[in-house]
Amino acid sequence: MNIVIIGSGNAATILGRKFKAAGHNILQIVSRNATAASALAYEWDTESANYLTLVNRTADVYIIAVSDDAIKEVVKDLYLPGKVVAHTAGSVDKEILKKVSPHYGVFYPLQSLRKETDHLPSIPLFFEGSDEKAKMTLEQLALSVSPQNTISASNEDRMKIHVAAVVVSNFTNHLYALAESYCKRENLDFSQLLPLIEETALRIKGISPWKVQTGPAIRHDKATIGQHLDLLKEHPHLKSIYVLLTESIQQQGEA
Amino acid sequence: MNIVIIGSGNAATILGRKFKAAGHNILQIVSRNATAASALAYEWDTESANYLTLVNRTADVYIIAVSDDAIKEVVKDLYLPGKVVAHTAGSVDKEILKKVSPHYGVFYPLQSLRKETDHLPSIPLFFEGSDEKAKMTLEQLALSVSPQNTISASNEDRMKIHVAAVVVSNFTNHLYALAESYCKRENLDFSQLLPLIEETALRIKGISPWKVQTGPAIRHDKATIGQHLDLLKEHPHLKSIYVLLTESIQQQGEA
Repeated sequence: MNIVIIGSGNAATILGRKFKAAGHNILQIVSRNATAASALAYEWDTESANYLTLVNRTADVYIIAVSDDAIKEVVKDLYLPGKVVAHTAGSVDKEILKKVSPHYGVFYPLQSLRKETDHLPSIPLFFEGSDEKAKMTLEQLALSVSPQNTISASNEDRMKIHVAAVVVSNFTNHLYALAESYCKRENLDFSQLLPLIEETALRIKGISPWKVQTGPAIRHDKATIGQHLDLLKEHPHLKSIYVLLTESIQQQGEA
Repeated sequence: MNIVIIGSGNAATILGRKFKAAGHNILQIVSRNATAASALAYEWDTESANYLTLVNRTADVYIIAVSDDAIKEVVKDLYLPGKVVAHTAGSVDKEILKKVSPHYGVFYPLQSLRKETDHLPSIPLFFEGSDEKAKMTLEQLALSVSPQNTISASNEDRMKIHVAAVVVSNFTNHLYALAESYCKRENLDFSQLLPLIEETALRIKGISPWKVQTGPAIRHDKATIGQHLDLLKEHPHLKSIYVLLTESIQQQGEA
């Protein structure tokens, strides 16, 4: 397909790379960030534009990969009747696009996308379309980059899975970050925790996380928990998180 | 080396498999749990015993891989002068073993070990010995199963890294579990989150988790956070965790 990407951040970059890898043609990058847009245009051997008035009008599909708040701004300046237009936001209703074209929808990647990573992660894609044309085009595009994991989902289901994504990704990453700061202050090497982090994430492919809960909280091991709280005396913030999540495991552990 | 393993749970099983894979000889499994002991003895083509009085006294090293509380009980019935004896507990002082032999220590695997997994994860090993003989034997054993990640660590450092391990493993697994329950109740497919969970865990190999924090909390995106709290109305426990970790990200995010 011929694709125009609006945006030049993490989602725009990684989705663009996925589209290229799947053999699509990226006709144009449109972004107010001239430096980022030029860099992507160079990477993909295509053109860039910095104003929506200069958007190439000959593409099959327009992917708006900008921050949730910026979608409103983009929509004001975009009118593409006959074209398929989609945004990539988990928590924004597709109806925000209805004035751009009758063929609108959502193309939501359920993945944490960062342009600095050197690999392309696999990306489950949740799509939704306002009509048959939008649905078929977005489904076809999704299948081309994610044949195993293309999911038709309503606004509501997409928003719900986004909540779960925040829990398993943003919150766990924050726990990694707190542990890294703790290790730094205690002169420990955080990288020694990486095999444990990897194992904890990968083993739940085959088994429910409820069945593999380990540690002092689930064992109600008061001696170890007491010792840990003592070791966390100089880390009051992490200590408060430790107490809360230990209580949560003990309350919910047998759920 | 000739090894006796005391215990038949997760740590005993996975460490035994690692020892076998590294070419060591497991002389005997000692465990009160006759069924588990027999199963491991069969797996490793060796002998099992159910009483400490029957322990084989000809091994080079004795690995006590039982729960923290049970170490005390094992120690009461064990006297192996001249032998190297170590326990595998992150949070238990090595001195608990001093009456068993003058050559005692700790052999702590910094990994979440579950016997039902079908692979052997890589396991950073923290060792400590009471004297040269214990140190050298335990270091050599550790290097044989974990050449990249054998670490000499004091009681105190081992206990401190154990706290960090609880945070990055037990607590993140609990977040996965809460998300799984939420998905079940909302008729969503939890397995669609697995690529995101994997990417979140693996990308911090090359970059600090502070630098890759994403999501509505770090963006101070009040609209999305409000929408998520609304969607969590029927999930009061997960909602309280959502609020606390969102606040933590916002307070600590720029630390």
